[in-house]
Amino acid sequence: MKRQRTGIQGELGAFSQEAVRQLLGDRAQVAPYPTFEAVFRALRAGKIDAAVIPMENTLAGSVHENYDHLLHFDVRIAAETNLRIVHNLIAAPGVRFTDIRKVYSHPVALNQCLKFFAKYRKLERFPFYDTAGSVKMVMEQRAPDAAAIASSVAAAIYGGTILKRSIEDDRRNFTRFFLLYSSKKLPAPRPGKEWKTSLVFTTRNTPGALFRGLAAFALRDLNLTKIESRPLHGKPWEYLFYVDFLGRENEPRVQNALRHLAEVADFLRILGSYPPGR
Amino acid sequence: MKRQRTGIQGELGAFSQEAVRQLLGDRAQVAPYPTFEAVFRALRAGKIDAAVIPMENTLAGSVHENYDHLLHFDVRIAAETNLRIVHNLIAAPGVRFTDIRKVYSHPVALNQCLKFFAKYRKLERFPFYDTAGSVKMVMEQRAPDAAAIASSVAAAIYGGTILKRSIEDDRRNFTRFFLLYSSKKLPAPRPGKEWKTSLVFTTRNTPGALFRGLAAFALRDLNLTKIESRPLHGKPWEYLFYVDFLGRENEPRVQNALRHLAEVADFLRILGSYPPGR
Repeated sequence: MKRQRTGIQGELGAFSQEAVRQLLGDRAQVAPYPTFEAVFRALRAGKIDAAVIPMENTLAGSVHENYDHLLHFDVRIAAETNLRIVHNLIAAPGVRFTDIRKVYSHPVALNQCLKFFAKYRKLERFPFYDTAGSVKMVMEQRAPDAAAIASSVAAAIYGGTILKRSIEDDRRNFTRFFLLYSSKKLPAPRPGKEWKTSLVFTTRNTPGALFRGLAAFALRDLNLTKIESRPLHGKPWEYLFYVDFLGRENEPRVQNALRHLAEVADFLRILGSYPPGR
Repeated sequence: MKRQRTGIQGELGAFSQEAVRQLLGDRAQVAPYPTFEAVFRALRAGKIDAAVIPMENTLAGSVHENYDHLLHFDVRIAAETNLRIVHNLIAAPGVRFTDIRKVYSHPVALNQCLKFFAKYRKLERFPFYDTAGSVKMVMEQRAPDAAAIASSVAAAIYGGTILKRSIEDDRRNFTRFFLLYSSKKLPAPRPGKEWKTSLVFTTRNTPGALFRGLAAFALRDLNLTKIESRPLHGKPWEYLFYVDFLGRENEPRVQNALRHLAEVADFLRILGSYPPGR
């Protein structure tokens, strides 16, 4: 089997790389890109075979930019995974915890370790563009008084030492990632018992329109696991709805629900059917 | 009538200050704070009488942080307004457009003027923490080759010259603001014919729960104007739903809908009834 090139946003060692490993195994080759949009463009241009993209975090919420990209790039969801986010304090080898004064990381990561900073008041926080990138920088500078907050994979890749493990405030901190392919290159699905389907639709701007849309699922006992709204450009105060539900696109019950939804929706696109993540 | 002190996020001249003027008139006294959380804290501490806070933009979507603050601080919505966002290129007096090489503004504002930057390729973009703050900085430095993108109010406050007006890509660019009071200090509502009500609820985690919640409105012909989901902390993959609908809390039909919703919701809080913004 040919090794797939999988695009992620962020430096090597980003949480997205752990998600790639959960989804595709240790041998998957990872191609890092500076922005989410660059990953989607590379997928469209065929420079990468697949992309692994964070969609939502149980504390911070949805990554809305990526919901917009799902609509604007012609992609399909092939799988999802939930990654527990463990933050570690990482420094150059030889640096002791008592030496640390400055801590660098992505602002979201810094904000998820507030109890740690409340306990160690000598530590000053510095926002950085990326969690793994902050480890890379601290290692390159061999900073004697600085540390970074990132994954254990980032520590391993850049040769950093973990000074404190699992310093995040809340252990119920998970990020959900999608494995995406270009629509034309979607591989055949693996056999599975349980399925989840994601789609996006707009309603006509009439009273009860969303309720009638959701009826398509409720009347067939299809369980919604998520609904997300995003603004519809060019139509102020109208919205796109992204819905996930348990079921597979080709099941008769789901086919009926989709036909029903299409009756009441102005626009409807299926984003993919895939086994639910653990 | 005593002059109210109204808190906003950002420097004087921010779009929030225009929203204060739309909501409370020219005489309202504005108190700027560096973060949204600082505004909510000041309101709770009684340092300000009211707050004017952006909730959503028709291009960028909801300001999710502020939806979280609505829940965590004990506030009520007294009014809303929709402000058209007009971006202007502003420089120090005497600086000509042909001199400009650098343009500073908030990243969201820079991203909403992409056609302008595509037309004038000599202009380099520099992200800044705040639109009005970028005008203040350009004026303080008397930069001969720099300009800022911000509101006409910011140009007036800091004495800048508007070199190009309305450079935003899309004129259907509106931001919706709430006027908030501490729950205990909510003033008596003005008389009005039309009303909108905002609330937040969680459903039991059972199939069709959201559908049953929305039925409370649909069965009474109450028109939903917005639904927004946010993650429920401590319960991964469960959500809070923020709903706006047309109707007033004390109407019998709305009272019935709220009682019905309370039957199927685990948690329900009314955030306020107010006249719909134009």
